[in-house]
Amino acid sequence: MSSILELIKFITCEFNRSLNSFPLPKKPEYLYGPIKYSLKGKGKRFRPILVHLSGRKYKVDPEDIMKVSLAVELLHCFTLIHDDIMDSDSTRRNMPTLHKRYDISAAILAGDGIFTISQLILNGIESKPTQFLMLYNQMVLEICEGQALDKDYEAKEYITLDDYISMVEKKTGALLAACCYLPAILAGETEDTIKILRKAGEKLGVAFQIQDDLFEIFGDEARMGKSLGSDILSNKNTAIAIESRKQFKSDWNKIVKEFDGENLDLIRNFLEVNKIKNKIEDIAENHFSSAYDSLTKLGFDKYSELYKFIKIIEKRHS
Amino acid sequence: MSSILELIKFITCEFNRSLNSFPLPKKPEYLYGPIKYSLKGKGKRFRPILVHLSGRKYKVDPEDIMKVSLAVELLHCFTLIHDDIMDSDSTRRNMPTLHKRYDISAAILAGDGIFTISQLILNGIESKPTQFLMLYNQMVLEICEGQALDKDYEAKEYITLDDYISMVEKKTGALLAACCYLPAILAGETEDTIKILRKAGEKLGVAFQIQDDLFEIFGDEARMGKSLGSDILSNKNTAIAIESRKQFKSDWNKIVKEFDGENLDLIRNFLEVNKIKNKIEDIAENHFSSAYDSLTKLGFDKYSELYKFIKIIEKRHS
Repeated sequence: MSSILELIKFITCEFNRSLNSFPLPKKPEYLYGPIKYSLKGKGKRFRPILVHLSGRKYKVDPEDIMKVSLAVELLHCFTLIHDDIMDSDSTRRNMPTLHKRYDISAAILAGDGIFTISQLILNGIESKPTQFLMLYNQMVLEICEGQALDKDYEAKEYITLDDYISMVEKKTGALLAACCYLPAILAGETEDTIKILRKAGEKLGVAFQIQDDLFEIFGDEARMGKSLGSDILSNKNTAIAIESRKQFKSDWNKIVKEFDGENLDLIRNFLEVNKIKNKIEDIAENHFSSAYDSLTKLGFDKYSELYKFIKIIEKRHS
Repeated sequence: MSSILELIKFITCEFNRSLNSFPLPKKPEYLYGPIKYSLKGKGKRFRPILVHLSGRKYKVDPEDIMKVSLAVELLHCFTLIHDDIMDSDSTRRNMPTLHKRYDISAAILAGDGIFTISQLILNGIESKPTQFLMLYNQMVLEICEGQALDKDYEAKEYITLDDYISMVEKKTGALLAACCYLPAILAGETEDTIKILRKAGEKLGVAFQIQDDLFEIFGDEARMGKSLGSDILSNKNTAIAIESRKQFKSDWNKIVKEFDGENLDLIRNFLEVNKIKNKIEDIAENHFSSAYDSLTKLGFDKYSELYKFIKIIEKRHS
């Protein structure tokens, strides 16, 4: 396991170096100031790492791998900035969100600028199949659809776990899927391979998001870089809330209503005693398994870098 | 002149048909509802018409011309949606702005979605030179820079007319320039030609924006599809305000302070008597002339469709 950790550290380091040395003008300050601020946040770089590991497997030119990884991380950053406005979130990666640090206008514009830069980086890849950018932008539209479903669900009292999973497949899964298949497209892999990588990435995305929902309640505040329990405070339809409401409607509504925004003990205890936590963990597990199954079909075994990295994600604590 | 008017009517009609039949899913409603609403607004379609006339001159495949014209109009629509949020504008094209009709979150997301669709349309053009999308996205980033300068200027008391014109070259000129040169790139025209078309479009953009600033005070409310005088109310640094403040600082500040948001007579009179209106009209005129000069270099004469269309813009009343 140690060699994969070293590899991940190396990729993260090279990626951060590339991102930090990315040429951005100084002016206009109103645009590039906020963009630079938003790129300062130290993310875990899961998406760039996925791109690099997939790119290594399919022997893609290292410079092109770096470009794709920069583009997907910038795209991710753009979606976070706009989502944070929509969800009125005030902390991200241990820093005030962009619209809190500046204002909503500056944050909207910075998001638009970062999204455009991510397109420019991909435009700069010289030899790419015609469908490459088309699939990239279809994926972006899928993320928009996922965010729209998420907002739609805010207004609904009852949604099912299946509804939730379909939403997350778009909102989180589409980008993780792209991290897996975009390098394979550059390598000229078959449509079948792309399809299977896409499925693996989508399942990984769902598992990843459900883990995040669990961390929102059972995680460690310092590690998470933000305050916990905000999903409960805003009565958000996460997998945990949907299952709790389905099984213990009045108890759950009471707990949510009484939550003071700080002490999560009662909620944690409720979810453990009633085995909601177990059930939701199982759903995440099943999605991880499904991702592994897809990868196995493509000849990835448990010694492959991508497989090992997904194992690391599965065991993460934040 | 009548044949150019017929041609413009025909292009507008075909363009609207294409836009209205553009396939958009029904769901999620939260994304596609607002997108459909925003596309209902009947714009004057100056940008698509420019694309079609340039495309006709350079003998570009008609289907590709239509795609480019759809992409630039959607891009324009995206920038209007996000700008309207940033500027807190409440009416656009005789309709409530998107964030007023829905809310800020829905408007941010709809803008992102429309921008992505404009990329997808261009991705779907089969034979395009490698620099085509790169130049498109560089242009988008320029528009973002222009909007950023505009916001920067809001906070400044003194900016010069040159500052203002540099800002408008980006915010309005970059897109009008792209309408002129994108078809020429598809036709494989030389870099020199692209450069001259770009310059013509930028000058046209500045002239166009300065006309708009004048209409904001001297226009007709019904024709403009919005209430007038909002630039004065928000004390915006338009060409008119910059020149008035430069020449008659205290008088102008007094007039702005006393403006009730409705009766523009006093302001109109002030600008006419003091020849500010004349001076600003001359600046617009000079930019139109400069655009014509560039076009003449490329062999466009006064009988050419593009030349005639720009004459129509020059003589417009809203």
